[in-house]
Amino acid sequence: MVRDAAAIARLSADVMWADDKASQGLGMQVMEVGAGRARLAMTITERMLNGHGSCHGGFIFTLADSAFAFACNSHGQPAVAQHCSITYLTPGRLGMRLVADAIERQRSERSGIYDVTVRDEAGTVIAEFRGHSRTLPGSLIEDAG
Amino acid sequence: MVRDAAAIARLSADVMWADDKASQGLGMQVMEVGAGRARLAMTITERMLNGHGSCHGGFIFTLADSAFAFACNSHGQPAVAQHCSITYLTPGRLGMRLVADAIERQRSERSGIYDVTVRDEAGTVIAEFRGHSRTLPGSLIEDAG
Amino acid sequence: MVRDAAAIARLSADVMWADDKASQGLGMQVMEVGAGRARLAMTITERMLNGHGSCHGGFIFTLADSAFAFACNSHGQPAVAQHCSITYLTPGRLGMRLVADAIERQRSERSGIYDVTVRDEAGTVIAEFRGHSRTLPGSLIEDAG
Amino acid sequence: MVRDAAAIARLSADVMWADDKASQGLGMQVMEVGAGRARLAMTITERMLNGHGSCHGGFIFTLADSAFAFACNSHGQPAVAQHCSITYLTPGRLGMRLVADAIERQRSERSGIYDVTVRDEAGTVIAEFRGHSRTLPGSLIEDAG
Repeated sequence: MVRDAAAIARLSADVMWADDKASQGLGMQVMEVGAGRARLAMTITERMLNGHGSCHGGFIFTLADSAFAFACNSHGQPAVAQHCSITYLTPGRLGMRLVADAIERQRSERSGIYDVTVRDEAGTVIAEFRGHSRTLPGSLIEDAG
Repeated sequence: MVRDAAAIARLSADVMWADDKASQGLGMQVMEVGAGRARLAMTITERMLNGHGSCHGGFIFTLADSAFAFACNSHGQPAVAQHCSITYLTPGRLGMRLVADAIERQRSERSGIYDVTVRDEAGTVIAEFRGHSRTLPGSLIEDAG
Repeated sequence: MVRDAAAIARLSADVMWADDKASQGLGMQVMEVGAGRARLAMTITERMLNGHGSCHGGFIFTLADSAFAFACNSHGQPAVAQHCSITYLTPGRLGMRLVADAIERQRSERSGIYDVTVRDEAGTVIAEFRGHSRTLPGSLIEDAG
Repeated sequence: MVRDAAAIARLSADVMWADDKASQGLGMQVMEVGAGRARLAMTITERMLNGHGSCHGGFIFTLADSAFAFACNSHGQPAVAQHCSITYLTPGRLGMRLVADAIERQRSERSGIYDVTVRDEAGTVIAEFRGHSRTLPGSLIEDAG
């Protein structure tokens, strides 16, 4: 069966999402996926607040990291995070709906670089993230539907 | 009232922890704090697993980020994360108890650099994290006990 | 005197370049500058080779860092590098002409984030760089021309 | 011939240094090497100054990167830089003698993490650097003396 890149991205996302209890449990939504890109959303809840009364950076990172994971796994080949960095620009507040856009900057046979921008609903940038992935052998979708 | 550095660190940690719903909600424990350092622990639970069946990197980051926060706030002056990076070395598995050790590498009036190593119970390194903090005006503890 | 953004960028670049013995001495050329962006080129010479026979990463970094400097100083306000990271994708070889394109990803009153891609003449990506800048008081061009 | 770790480190450094025109050309000196560590020095000269009148960050990075290279190649197996980051803490000035100390933080069969601190002669920290290396097949010293 021949599939185009967009179909492979959607199928890979479905396979990833089915087992991704972490992203599900934080109330994330996969809004869009394509070859080398993904858009995920998450609303900041009470349990994500830190000692300064704003969103714990770990949850902002986790949203960005999930968007990165969906983008770097969008080619049907499993990939894992190797090194990630994040810069916090604006604090996240209770009730804010965050949207993370991941795009592929580089991809070779073995590794990839992805940039993720996290924004609030008004478009203000909350954080900039860059993820480096490493590709694993095998396929995410060969046994799937 | 004059307090020594260790007492300021403990008091700052108490103030931070009281409002840190994020770290509490993930089952973290503050095992030790001192001037410029902190040790926190967290057990990997079902809800932290990702689509590859291992711990979502976001939760490992969040533990490291909390240890960083307790270390960079240990001087009684509020500090926030500005830029953080993490390298994943060994996957985290269900049931693993992770311990994150944060130590201060540099600290000036306005900013700081902290290194955090996350290990499993056997001492295997799960991740290396480096956090850059920025100091805010005010005090964490001036109004406290 | 009112100047548009492009004129400010060119004038800032002239002021920077005049004193930039480092970039001059490595044979760099400023090919283009604009508001929030810069393109610089440099050819890999014998004295840039390392113990593995390829270009020492430090010189690839230096080219990217110069492009970053011209981009983050392009608004006429002095800015300095605070934190930079680089990922090496393809080795640089003797005689290669490298081109570094810096673009502004984020900019606030006090800080900025710039992405720099270094390519060879065929367009192969040699390295990806991300720089974080901090703005200083004063102006690069108020006393100039 | 059986060699201990210190002898392998010295021999690897000799092999590296012999061809390292870049580090030689900048006037670097290898002051110490050992298994997983290296100390290099370099004096800031006129040609390293940038448009702000201080040392171009690229040369500080290059010194740190060389120290990193000698440390990650100290086990006799060739290793190359994959990803590096640097934080600038204090400007470098003309005539300053910089000393870079690289130590191994993590090392596995395929990769390593090294921390490099660059100080001036008075011990003031100029920059903190972290390098990630990847090991290549072969040996630096099998054919050597």
